[in-house]
Amino acid sequence: MAKEVNKDLQRERAKCDFNVEELTNFLDWGVKYTKIRRNLEQKVFSVKGLLDDIPDEYRSHKEKYENAVRKGVRLYRILQSLDDQSRSDEENVRVNFRNIISTAVFKDNSPFVLHMSMFVPTIIGQGTEEQKAYWVKRAKNMEIIGTYAQTELGHGTFIRGLETQAVYDVGTEEFVLNSPALSSYKWWPGGLGHTANYCVVMARLYIKDKSYGIHPFLVQIRDEETHMPLPGIKLGEIGAKLGYNTVNNGFLGFENHRIPRDRMLMKNAQVLKDGTFVGGSNSKLTYGTMVFVRVLIVNNMANLLSKAVTIAVRYSAVRRQSQLKPNEPEPQILDFVTQQHKLLIAIATCHAFFINAMWLWEVYFGVTKQLAKGNLENLPELHALACCMKPLTTMDSMYLVEKCRLACGGHGYMLSSNLPQTYGLVTAASTYEGENTVLLLQAARSLVKAWRLLAKGQKLKGSMAYLADNTTLKTWDGSVSGIIKSFQVVAIRKLSGVVANLDELQNSGLSPEEAWNKASVYLTVVSEAHGRATLLSVYKSEMDKRISTMSPPLKAVMNQLLELYAVYWALERLGDLLLYTPISKKDVAVLQGRYIDILEKIRPNAVGLVDAFDFRDEILNSALGAYDGRAYERLMEEAMKSPLNAEPVNDTFHKYLKPFMRGKL
Amino acid sequence: MAKEVNKDLQRERAKCDFNVEELTNFLDWGVKYTKIRRNLEQKVFSVKGLLDDIPDEYRSHKEKYENAVRKGVRLYRILQSLDDQSRSDEENVRVNFRNIISTAVFKDNSPFVLHMSMFVPTIIGQGTEEQKAYWVKRAKNMEIIGTYAQTELGHGTFIRGLETQAVYDVGTEEFVLNSPALSSYKWWPGGLGHTANYCVVMARLYIKDKSYGIHPFLVQIRDEETHMPLPGIKLGEIGAKLGYNTVNNGFLGFENHRIPRDRMLMKNAQVLKDGTFVGGSNSKLTYGTMVFVRVLIVNNMANLLSKAVTIAVRYSAVRRQSQLKPNEPEPQILDFVTQQHKLLIAIATCHAFFINAMWLWEVYFGVTKQLAKGNLENLPELHALACCMKPLTTMDSMYLVEKCRLACGGHGYMLSSNLPQTYGLVTAASTYEGENTVLLLQAARSLVKAWRLLAKGQKLKGSMAYLADNTTLKTWDGSVSGIIKSFQVVAIRKLSGVVANLDELQNSGLSPEEAWNKASVYLTVVSEAHGRATLLSVYKSEMDKRISTMSPPLKAVMNQLLELYAVYWALERLGDLLLYTPISKKDVAVLQGRYIDILEKIRPNAVGLVDAFDFRDEILNSALGAYDGRAYERLMEEAMKSPLNAEPVNDTFHKYLKPFMRGKL
Repeated sequence: MAKEVNKDLQRERAKCDFNVEELTNFLDWGVKYTKIRRNLEQKVFSVKGLLDDIPDEYRSHKEKYENAVRKGVRLYRILQSLDDQSRSDEENVRVNFRNIISTAVFKDNSPFVLHMSMFVPTIIGQGTEEQKAYWVKRAKNMEIIGTYAQTELGHGTFIRGLETQAVYDVGTEEFVLNSPALSSYKWWPGGLGHTANYCVVMARLYIKDKSYGIHPFLVQIRDEETHMPLPGIKLGEIGAKLGYNTVNNGFLGFENHRIPRDRMLMKNAQVLKDGTFVGGSNSKLTYGTMVFVRVLIVNNMANLLSKAVTIAVRYSAVRRQSQLKPNEPEPQILDFVTQQHKLLIAIATCHAFFINAMWLWEVYFGVTKQLAKGNLENLPELHALACCMKPLTTMDSMYLVEKCRLACGGHGYMLSSNLPQTYGLVTAASTYEGENTVLLLQAARSLVKAWRLLAKGQKLKGSMAYLADNTTLKTWDGSVSGIIKSFQVVAIRKLSGVVANLDELQNSGLSPEEAWNKASVYLTVVSEAHGRATLLSVYKSEMDKRISTMSPPLKAVMNQLLELYAVYWALERLGDLLLYTPISKKDVAVLQGRYIDILEKIRPNAVGLVDAFDFRDEILNSALGAYDGRAYERLMEEAMKSPLNAEPVNDTFHKYLKPFMRGKL
Repeated sequence: MAKEVNKDLQRERAKCDFNVEELTNFLDWGVKYTKIRRNLEQKVFSVKGLLDDIPDEYRSHKEKYENAVRKGVRLYRILQSLDDQSRSDEENVRVNFRNIISTAVFKDNSPFVLHMSMFVPTIIGQGTEEQKAYWVKRAKNMEIIGTYAQTELGHGTFIRGLETQAVYDVGTEEFVLNSPALSSYKWWPGGLGHTANYCVVMARLYIKDKSYGIHPFLVQIRDEETHMPLPGIKLGEIGAKLGYNTVNNGFLGFENHRIPRDRMLMKNAQVLKDGTFVGGSNSKLTYGTMVFVRVLIVNNMANLLSKAVTIAVRYSAVRRQSQLKPNEPEPQILDFVTQQHKLLIAIATCHAFFINAMWLWEVYFGVTKQLAKGNLENLPELHALACCMKPLTTMDSMYLVEKCRLACGGHGYMLSSNLPQTYGLVTAASTYEGENTVLLLQAARSLVKAWRLLAKGQKLKGSMAYLADNTTLKTWDGSVSGIIKSFQVVAIRKLSGVVANLDELQNSGLSPEEAWNKASVYLTVVSEAHGRATLLSVYKSEMDKRISTMSPPLKAVMNQLLELYAVYWALERLGDLLLYTPISKKDVAVLQGRYIDILEKIRPNAVGLVDAFDFRDEILNSALGAYDGRAYERLMEEAMKSPLNAEPVNDTFHKYLKPFMRGKL
């Protein structure tokens, strides 16, 4: 028998004034994709053994891994059976836009995660036709399990620093792999520890003592029959982490390990039998993959944050605490304006990120089509954009997921809330696929370059076009469009300021590199300003496009969220606005009042808005956030799953506590 | 044989231009206390079996608890043997000011933590002489193990909402304890799950159907012989959490559980045999304990943050990455100004917090002595101060520990860095002992009240005295004193603004409670502004006092850190300064340039500054932060401790992977 839904949640749902299903379809990028997603979830969760009876957090590190392998194998076969091979890349992106089933099955991720996401795509992208024919087939059949090893103990984002060596031996027509120092050990690849038996290894190629840069090599690392590491290969897992403990991240070192010549992936560069190096197509092509992964991240941040805010908003509707007025019942904590201040911006941010991700995907596929025709023109701008968006969306998500967790008080600290684990997943994204500060500085380099081109009379395109606008704002315009314009002005003024600063520092005698380093704090600030302006303007322009077919009640709510997002960020960046726009003290007070008014308007729809994210309880995986709102009951049910609670008296009483209390220990 | 210290760290230490030991003595509150602390650490760490060979993170949840009990018993006896009973409370605070041995032994904390920190003090504070004579003796001898149960599933910071009932039965002269709903179950007390056999329970007292408020009851919960929960008592642990997993936090419910009348702690209120209630001394007295705990927290934040920044700074001196200049070796990442921007403020913040904690302790002991003479006058102001300081120091620490972790890139995500666990400890403090937003609103209530008293011509004392200053700043003064003055003006202007806003809202027809709620976001901002002004001004004034006996080189560095702290926060609060002070655009640019210059000045002493925190490697517990700087070697050594690495091939290969790859699964 289904348990009754919490009365407060029932009331919240009754008063929601828009069609929740309509919003779900919008977020899924079309009603068709809602259907496909729900069907997939229904199928997966009807399979027994994929969800844990005893949560993973009670297992040892080793047991967690073993459990993940068991589930991973199972899940792979189910997904394989449901896979529709006829879908295009674009369609696949839409189908998976809001698919986070793996967070339900593993809480973090699968030990096979890099097989399909990095190993196979790298062979497809960098292998010759012959290599593809043989290896992609084996990999797709799962006859072998692969991973992708680039990062080393000593080098991450700075790829040129990689130290693993592949020295070509003309005599035997082999590459000899070596890890010349501990710092050159590969470190981090998922599945590398004990799962994969093949690996794409990025290594520095040497032919006759000359270095030819970093290239990909397909290396067998374990025996297919016994799974023992091959001779000359040192393997293991890197140990426990903040999150992703089921992923089996590993290390890998080589000692004179030899591989045949045909194991170098030779689509873009070749080593001929006699040691002749032929090579190297445009390195900009690899930008494509980097952009792809960073758009995926923006998308993923939207998914994880929407999960966290669903949990926090539902719990805030269920939790009653304190007194607003004497002699009245304790209010729902969602009625405290401070709580709305913490949570409603998180909802708006999810929408901003989902919509930016949709737009970025479209831009990405557009540029990819140009690429196929040999047109690389728009790639650098897209790359610069992705270098801004990835850091901003990961930083904001990190901050807001923690806001959501802390907004649940002590109970948010329980793993049964699933908020700490969600944070673990989100915060990793600040570091992987390009460390955030490094990316912001890369974006700044593009921006500074663009600014100098502009000075020479060149035109800028796409997301940088606004930089050419040199109108001065005469009066403050607090509309969303006005705030966007202000943010653009802020970015322009900061950029022009930092370029002047760079010139000044160089004129004072610093080298360009010293000047760059000295200005770097403010260079990251410039990229952030550019990213903020872009996020907000894309949110508005794309929403304007997409809103036209919505029903009037939903339109109203969407505009409220957009306004909330704009006003929130205007208040967060008040110092910038005061420095670079004509906003007055009075305007600031008006903006502050307006912010509170928008919170009040959105409040009645808060639960409807998170319901529209449409997470099944299996995916939320949260005692605090379940659809029925039985938060306290579920906290207790989850506590009872702890193996410590299986026995009333723990053995340590007899072994330690009793002798201790009797003074015998 | 000791391994060689990393060359970069050697160089850093050679160039440090102040006396590290002198600074250590200062931070320890005197050379005497450095000695005592080091002696204690030496004794504890020479005992075998207290530090783990296999880190706790590889154990199951149950094993972690069992390991903690084993170590806890051992540690207690050692500390007992080293305890000096002749020390005063003040001396004990100094002795323990920088003692965080327990984080080394448990990584989080002991299952006995509440026995000495809450159970015994509550009996001492609230028990009658007779009760104390009997129970304190038993507790101090560890014949019984106690904990303290206040928070319930349904109520935390809002104490008036507690639901556990103690109904006096005149017939039997007993109290009947009941948990009327699931939400009234006690939830969170450390050691309650399976460790403690006694508990102070805060419950609502009823005599003849009339409620007499919340009172403390001493309840036996487990049989002393068998450790079985007593009849009418439901007990267990609450399950896995973000951190503190060795603490054995538990739940507790009552079903008609009877205790004798003399188990109510009756110092402040009594229930006579016939059911007459006699009672209640000044409730302000309990403020004392709350203040005590919150000062402890400020102190503890300084300790945990200094641990995190020690790890991050040493690692940043060891890690080399990327290129600043072509054809030069990769620089230490500490040479990137963006990295200095992340880390040096964390060092300055530790000093700010240590010094504020020293000052707060002195204020606390001063007020306590007044209290002993019956003078309660200064207690409310101290309470308001603690209500600001606790949220600010916990929020800042949370933010900066994460900065430190992220500044270590991917390796900061490894548990062997000990940064994630440190975050787990720090972030809990945002919620426990008064949720931060609730505390900020309590402080705001005091501030608004003070403001209204001021309007009536009353004088304000202590930390609020500056509110009476109504001079307008005519010119910007960027000195540290000038920045303090500006921060005070900001706090005054914000407070006056929010009071006007409250009046306006009420004049527009809202009830006082509705107006308070509507203004609450800006009320928390007012408390924050007051807290910032206070933290900074105390840092300066106390440093000015204490600096006089320092050697000139140390003085110089201390002043640099103070200036960094002031300028950093001025830049962080630029919007406020632009709104409320005469700072100009040009002043802002000067301030920004100055900030980078201070970073440059402090950079050469960075490693010396963290060395001065004087953490033994056992306490840092970090592969990245050890004194010898062998970061990569230690990461690998730690990885090899993972039980998964004990065997080259995991069983799941035969069970799942091989059949899977052969298409048989």
